Amino acid sequence: MKNRAVKKAIAELKQRFGAQLSDSQGDCEAHGRDESFHEPAWPDAVLFAQSTEDVADAVKICGAHDFPIIPFGVGTSLEGHVMAVQGGLSIDLSRMDQILEVNVSDLDCTIQAGVTRKQLNTYLRDTGLFFPVDPGADATLGGMCATAASGTNAVRYGTMRENVLGIEAVLANGEIVSTGGRARKSAAGYDLTRLLIGSEGTLGVITQITLRLYGIPEAVSACVCPFDTLNGAVESVIATIQMGLPVARIELLDELQIRACNQYANLDLPEQPTLFLEFHGTEHGITDDTMRFKDLAREFGGGEFGWATHQEDRNRLWAARHDAAYATTQMRAGSKLMTTDVCVPISCLAACILETKQDLDRTDLLGTIAGHVGDGNFHVILALDADDPNEVEAMNAFNERLIERALAMGGTCTGEHGIGLGKMDFLGREHGDLIAPMRLIKQALDPQNLMNPGKIFDFE
Amino acid sequence: MKNRAVKKAIAELKQRFGAQLSDSQGDCEAHGRDESFHEPAWPDAVLFAQSTEDVADAVKICGAHDFPIIPFGVGTSLEGHVMAVQGGLSIDLSRMDQILEVNVSDLDCTIQAGVTRKQLNTYLRDTGLFFPVDPGADATLGGMCATAASGTNAVRYGTMRENVLGIEAVLANGEIVSTGGRARKSAAGYDLTRLLIGSEGTLGVITQITLRLYGIPEAVSACVCPFDTLNGAVESVIATIQMGLPVARIELLDELQIRACNQYANLDLPEQPTLFLEFHGTEHGITDDTMRFKDLAREFGGGEFGWATHQEDRNRLWAARHDAAYATTQMRAGSKLMTTDVCVPISCLAACILETKQDLDRTDLLGTIAGHVGDGNFHVILALDADDPNEVEAMNAFNERLIERALAMGGTCTGEHGIGLGKMDFLGREHGDLIAPMRLIKQALDPQNLMNPGKIFDFE
Repeated sequence: MKNRAVKKAIAELKQRFGAQLSDSQGDCEAHGRDESFHEPAWPDAVLFAQSTEDVADAVKICGAHDFPIIPFGVGTSLEGHVMAVQGGLSIDLSRMDQILEVNVSDLDCTIQAGVTRKQLNTYLRDTGLFFPVDPGADATLGGMCATAASGTNAVRYGTMRENVLGIEAVLANGEIVSTGGRARKSAAGYDLTRLLIGSEGTLGVITQITLRLYGIPEAVSACVCPFDTLNGAVESVIATIQMGLPVARIELLDELQIRACNQYANLDLPEQPTLFLEFHGTEHGITDDTMRFKDLAREFGGGEFGWATHQEDRNRLWAARHDAAYATTQMRAGSKLMTTDVCVPISCLAACILETKQDLDRTDLLGTIAGHVGDGNFHVILALDADDPNEVEAMNAFNERLIERALAMGGTCTGEHGIGLGKMDFLGREHGDLIAPMRLIKQALDPQNLMNPGKIFDFE
Repeated sequence: MKNRAVKKAIAELKQRFGAQLSDSQGDCEAHGRDESFHEPAWPDAVLFAQSTEDVADAVKICGAHDFPIIPFGVGTSLEGHVMAVQGGLSIDLSRMDQILEVNVSDLDCTIQAGVTRKQLNTYLRDTGLFFPVDPGADATLGGMCATAASGTNAVRYGTMRENVLGIEAVLANGEIVSTGGRARKSAAGYDLTRLLIGSEGTLGVITQITLRLYGIPEAVSACVCPFDTLNGAVESVIATIQMGLPVARIELLDELQIRACNQYANLDLPEQPTLFLEFHGTEHGITDDTMRFKDLAREFGGGEFGWATHQEDRNRLWAARHDAAYATTQMRAGSKLMTTDVCVPISCLAACILETKQDLDRTDLLGTIAGHVGDGNFHVILALDADDPNEVEAMNAFNERLIERALAMGGTCTGEHGIGLGKMDFLGREHGDLIAPMRLIKQALDPQNLMNPGKIFDFE
């Protein structure tokens, strides 16, 4: 039973938005969960926004009724970012999916926030350009900004932070602002673009984005290299990075992850710790680079080298990598996805991964390890029985040990998934001194705590 | 005559800091000016800080006396950033020049804010690593963070924004905070690292920095290419970027700038619009790249290609480029430096530079054009008689036309120099909608307006 204030807010929103506003059970349920094990929390209503003005009007109405706002893309977050833990309005931006402008000669584009990464790259195909940031899911670019997403290409092309030129957002007061622009760099005032990137919807609703694009490389080679040991695989990654070999992608999958991918994607890779790599450049350059990597890998117990020079083979390989988390949960019927992510200095990567693997083996948890190891970033992907309190407790304890291990090595509690609900406590352990200034900024820009309340840090 | 409140603040600072605190005329004068024509404004006293704790204590004492704080590195800013326009304490960080940690295997280092870019690279020489960001002056890394500096290598390696992993800073309340860390990427909470980068001392005093480093490339080739026309030079830059040729540096100097550099640095380059370039990579790769550029340049009227394969020749060349602004003011005895900088989308670069050159030629101002054209960023460097009000008026009008031109093309009023005193009005024209949120953030983090008051935007 909704209380009176909620009913009034919804009534006013319905009046403004008509059929774009839904408080049906189905819509609320679909907007109260993400891809993680975190407990769903339904919003009171969902707005299917079609324009920045829709968002601005909704924010103003919500402000007048002190009604929380939760931005929603396609719900692929992994730490409960979209859960409406205090109720309120989920603003679904997936219908704002227009590609507004592609400037081929400037290598940039401007899109609405609901465009997904695959949609954008499909659209760009004929231009010879691409956008490199690729989290596993086919997330919206708005969501990818909000969570500071990265992915397999980050080791070469950077994360969302390095690839967003400007953002249009609706702030908590309903004002529409545009940060950044189309210049490649600017020193004009505070960097509000990057303040919004990673703010997880707590400072504003992102409605448009201007992105950097890249020319599709002249030549691409992808290869797969199994290793005798996990240590050998990780040590070759470290050597690759330290010698400055320009990998575009270098991804680790442990033997169980390979088994999961084989089953899920119908592959027949040897069930060993494996690196997936890609080189981008000229025909000449990538051949050189690949040979250098092959020599290096051999020193660390790298086995038979698989190639994927055809586009379709490469696509199949990377699709398998991107679906790694889904593949892991498919191994156990009814399980939910718990994927944690840490990032450490590269010199600590072997120790961090090996200790984590040993720790995982000591538990009864079913989990795989996969990661963007060129950045020192890796995930443990658990297929979790979220209804078993003992298992949830074991998972939480394991996660805590992993994060403490990463922090002790000078790393971070999240390389790319964000804080959301799941890592609020860990943010305090990593950056206890920063919670106060973050709160001050939040208070300044959103004094009512309208914007995605209950995420990142405690505010009230 | 200092007023009583100022006297009390200085007395307390003297008591705490003894000889580290100076209110001598010489020290105040030396800390009330930068390298620009902007009118000096002396602080009431100067603290030569030796530790983060010194800075924190000074900030607390200043807070108690409502006494402004102006962070000072080596005074190489170009828009009056260090002028004590409301008096107060200049905190000189140049004695905080320790390189605290170099992690060769992780390609990072942690330094105190007073380390200069040349000092760092000299120190790193034996490690095989280097730090790429290189504004013309030998600025401190703290100053380079505060102004979001970039330079000739930004087209390949990025600006300060892309190369700082973490910052230690003293906030206005005297708290010491550490943002970021040593992980290559993190999605842990608001990006306070990048909020501080470009905040020009208005949000805190930067005391330590963790930087990304890069392996010195296996092979480097530098070359100089004169062009028949300015347009030809700029069009070859645009083509270079659009075809994705991986230049590490691509710098434009117009014919008058070349004359100035010839005189200042004892060179004998042909007095034509000229590109300075550098390629980084393998022996093989850079030969390929250079040949491709050579073919391309010929299409646009590129002339005889000069090479600098020896380290000393390259150093001489880049020293001349870095000293371009000093070379220009040397052409006119007693002149002061006024260098403005805009950045536009690369497709607009030719139009922007050519219109600017024509505009400059129509005035009586003595000025050169030089720039980091691979980013769409260029400077007009004026040798100004700052005592001639007519000339100052003409300069201001010219600058305004230049910035309006850049903004109309989707560019920014400053690519790398920052806002300081000189571009406050232009920030409002570029980002009028952002002044309010910037003010809210400033108010939240520095409610007394202690930190470098009177810069970036009007606050009180």
